[in-house]
Amino acid sequence: MRLAVVGVGPGNLADLTFRAAAYLEQAEVIVGYRTYLEGITPYLEGKEVLPGRMREEMERARAAVRQAQQGKRVVVVSGGDPGVYGMAVPVLQAALQAGEAVEVVPGVTAATAVAAMLGAPLGHDFAVISLSDLLTPWSLILRRLRAAIEADFVLVLYNPSSSRRQDKWRQAVELIQSERPGSTPVGVVWDATRPGSRRTLTTVARLDQEPVDMRALVVVGNSQTTISNGWMITPRGYECR
Amino acid sequence: MRLAVVGVGPGNLADLTFRAAAYLEQAEVIVGYRTYLEGITPYLEGKEVLPGRMREEMERARAAVRQAQQGKRVVVVSGGDPGVYGMAVPVLQAALQAGEAVEVVPGVTAATAVAAMLGAPLGHDFAVISLSDLLTPWSLILRRLRAAIEADFVLVLYNPSSSRRQDKWRQAVELIQSERPGSTPVGVVWDATRPGSRRTLTTVARLDQEPVDMRALVVVGNSQTTISNGWMITPRGYECR
Repeated sequence: MRLAVVGVGPGNLADLTFRAAAYLEQAEVIVGYRTYLEGITPYLEGKEVLPGRMREEMERARAAVRQAQQGKRVVVVSGGDPGVYGMAVPVLQAALQAGEAVEVVPGVTAATAVAAMLGAPLGHDFAVISLSDLLTPWSLILRRLRAAIEADFVLVLYNPSSSRRQDKWRQAVELIQSERPGSTPVGVVWDATRPGSRRTLTTVARLDQEPVDMRALVVVGNSQTTISNGWMITPRGYECR
Repeated sequence: MRLAVVGVGPGNLADLTFRAAAYLEQAEVIVGYRTYLEGITPYLEGKEVLPGRMREEMERARAAVRQAQQGKRVVVVSGGDPGVYGMAVPVLQAALQAGEAVEVVPGVTAATAVAAMLGAPLGHDFAVISLSDLLTPWSLILRRLRAAIEADFVLVLYNPSSSRRQDKWRQAVELIQSERPGSTPVGVVWDATRPGSRRTLTTVARLDQEPVDMRALVVVGNSQTTISNGWMITPRGYECR
């Protein structure tokens, strides 16, 4: 291993894989967004650490490639799984440009970590959608949301809201409320990738009352999803064929 | 812990999480489908093992609950993540019926393990669809496929084909070919959750030439996905806003 992008799972050292831990231990340089580095402090000791900030992913990726080109063993850390809105894309792009080899080490992704906290809401087909319009036209995000609702997918909404775009979150909620029954179960988990995470179970009708922000992940059930005894469950099929 | 359903990741002991390993070590009884048990043999020694067969998930779940009710520490093993077409749903349902507590321990899900083998094809919004019509009407599966293609989701297709329904796989391929450009990148990975896995990169136009079966997972790119130097990459957005 010279350059790897490694998923460290949902922010809890217990949810790290053995492979990810081995890569972190072998690394000479560890590159990552500060929040994710805080989750893996035991692995940082004696390492060269290059922390980064949000929205500087490409710079961080290029810095990692330069370190690898100097012959160092470099790990770029990504929360959850690096391939899902994570560092795998920028690192692969930077490595491609530089002609450098790279490995991708998967991790427990936030969607399934959150699902486990809620019960089993992803028991049937689901669509993963980021509501951030930083790099994607808002019209396309709404089109995806509508298509996924109409085809009865369970929805997993990343980056649902921020102080900058509360109006867009309201639009998304209105769309969901207009297309799915108000009684449809919804789970919201905050800080799923960090210590102190918390969850709530609600419904589509009451979704606008939840303080949803960038730290939340929202799971909207399909037509078969139920809440029983604190568990959100989407059955594995449609029994009434 | 008395009863837990534990994701053991993509069939490689290195991709097990520390939490999953701790649960396996503490278990007195381990319940699971044979193929997944084979991947974790070092953890089975000295344990009571209840192997199960495919399509007997509910019986397996009830057997696990009965063992827990006898006061034993029971782990139900699920490949990948237990919440994604796995054992979390039947175990939660059986535990609910019996009034028994249960924990869900997430694992690295096949979709992201496969994505890591291909590069970073899930860098943007994606839809996870099972093509198995055992419990879901085929018309709904086709509707989901069509909706996801039209809204430019990356597609992750589980259980794409089997000897029983090769005709349905052909229908799905024809739908994909009619709605997405022939040059769209496609990645296929066989046996992702088992040793000896292999991958191929192809295109939508040539997808019908791949020997896709139940052991394959198919990832169809969106309009932005590229293949470069053996990596399938879906960029994080749409740069031409």
